Amino acid sequence: MVYEGPFAQANEQLERVFDAYRSRTIKRVFYVACGGSSALMYPSKYVIDREAQGITAEIFSSNEFIHRNPRSLDEQSLVILCSHKGKTPETTEAARFAKSKGALTVSLMYVEHAPLADESDFVVNYSWISAGNMEPHPEIMNYAILYRLTMGLLYIKEGNKKYEKLLASLDHLGTVFEKAMVQYADTVREYAEQYKDESIIYTMASGANYGMAYSFAICILMEMQWIHSHAIHAGEFFHGPFEILDKTVPFILLKGLDETRPLEERAHAFLQQYGEKTIVIDAKTFDLTGIDDEVKGYIAPLAMNFVLRMFALALSKARSHPLETRRYMFKVPY
Amino acid sequence: MVYEGPFAQANEQLERVFDAYRSRTIKRVFYVACGGSSALMYPSKYVIDREAQGITAEIFSSNEFIHRNPRSLDEQSLVILCSHKGKTPETTEAARFAKSKGALTVSLMYVEHAPLADESDFVVNYSWISAGNMEPHPEIMNYAILYRLTMGLLYIKEGNKKYEKLLASLDHLGTVFEKAMVQYADTVREYAEQYKDESIIYTMASGANYGMAYSFAICILMEMQWIHSHAIHAGEFFHGPFEILDKTVPFILLKGLDETRPLEERAHAFLQQYGEKTIVIDAKTFDLTGIDDEVKGYIAPLAMNFVLRMFALALSKARSHPLETRRYMFKVPY
Repeated sequence: MVYEGPFAQANEQLERVFDAYRSRTIKRVFYVACGGSSALMYPSKYVIDREAQGITAEIFSSNEFIHRNPRSLDEQSLVILCSHKGKTPETTEAARFAKSKGALTVSLMYVEHAPLADESDFVVNYSWISAGNMEPHPEIMNYAILYRLTMGLLYIKEGNKKYEKLLASLDHLGTVFEKAMVQYADTVREYAEQYKDESIIYTMASGANYGMAYSFAICILMEMQWIHSHAIHAGEFFHGPFEILDKTVPFILLKGLDETRPLEERAHAFLQQYGEKTIVIDAKTFDLTGIDDEVKGYIAPLAMNFVLRMFALALSKARSHPLETRRYMFKVPY
Repeated sequence: MVYEGPFAQANEQLERVFDAYRSRTIKRVFYVACGGSSALMYPSKYVIDREAQGITAEIFSSNEFIHRNPRSLDEQSLVILCSHKGKTPETTEAARFAKSKGALTVSLMYVEHAPLADESDFVVNYSWISAGNMEPHPEIMNYAILYRLTMGLLYIKEGNKKYEKLLASLDHLGTVFEKAMVQYADTVREYAEQYKDESIIYTMASGANYGMAYSFAICILMEMQWIHSHAIHAGEFFHGPFEILDKTVPFILLKGLDETRPLEERAHAFLQQYGEKTIVIDAKTFDLTGIDDEVKGYIAPLAMNFVLRMFALALSKARSHPLETRRYMFKVPY
């Protein structure tokens, strides 16, 4: 990794956070954000659940976090928040609330100055570009920064060596994305043409990938395309939701490389038998050269998300409904 | 509470579990089940989050729990499982898995003998009756047993006195249900007539009530009525999902009495302004005489769930689609 420009800044910001990690006891991590910024934290919770010896993690939507007021939130807590432009009022309020409880607060955002930054102990800026284009700096995109904050914590507190494997792997993420972009170019265009008139599209995944399914359902389909949706957990599917399946109901199924893949495979077999409008995005089709085997299950959702953004852009073009179109968000009081 | 018949049995079973609580260290609770049995555990996690000094809680769908294999699952864990007939294969496997990690396993079920019972350290049987009819023994219904297991843990380990208030309040639950049944009789019939032809109905709630919204969406609407649905979190609503709202989109909004009610009120105001097909079930309309103020927020979801079952039955009648009708569940291999 070359440390210059935005890399250098992100690295310096991360090092300051790591110094704070070293200076205090951390027993519990709260991932706090709203909507898409919350969805991107799901893979990091998966990492904590799988890897941490003595640290537990929770994900809360910002306002739920404040009003639920978890009693385990204290000065041994790390609260990681995220808001793209740092202006989400609930998330800013959540940072203030977390600080009032003595927690260490670290906030991710794209911009450098924002209300959320003012209320946080530390800020890390990530690189970002809109859906469908190449990430300019995948090594410091939001998911990568979150993983560095999460695996860095386990490295510092518990000597977990996967942090080093993560860092080495992130250097190859740009190439992974470039190859996926070429590989999926026709698929996303054909999909968009075929499904552009659907009024509902379900997404489904499990484990580290569930956040990607949730993000695509609520941010892309519902928010940006006004298509009805619901991110169904691939294990829960068989305990209610699958009864709505027939040959007319479209599903986007994600198959990752983490330990919960058997759940997604079971859902796939059922969709194949009883559905006819299923598309599967299988991380096994990605060229993950350069990604360390030990972190492939964790990195797969990042490539999955990149491909999903290609689907989003293709859908928006086929439907002549730009991804930026809103009727309420940032337009009316709420 | 009179201790005879099923009461006596449930009490004896609970006392045995409480003895096990006393004999070991418990730092973490895992609520593990599938579908509706998982949804009914959400209020109990809310209680742990709000009340516990030194115990944390997680909810996992059974297969996710096994494959995710949380590292914090150990001999200081309590795993509470539930399966109505004790035959859900993933949940039985989850009990076996939890025991292999040294955890204390307690399983809830309606039947006395079942595969899940064979794999669990302790079993507690709950009382149950199908949707729309009166609970014969609300004091030992599934939600009540779960609360007793949860608040009993906090009473024994941390001296939390709300357990006593819960017990005293549960004695009045039957009366609460009876009154709600009269009060909502016309409402549910009118609702069912008006909405019987909808192809999608969203549910929404937050805090202790979110599990009720989830259960109604996946078990009643999707599974039992084949109506598209999605349980939207009232805080997340404003960060994506609300863009699908227009005057044609039906919502069922739950307003509870817990600390997150402001989130549900905010969602209500928005639905009132931009939607036209909203029904609100507000716990403030329930007559909660006999329920202790300190546990009203926790008890409200139980009354909410009772009323939702009246909606379910009314919908099924108006649509001539019995709640028992399935195309896949228990009918085909999956």
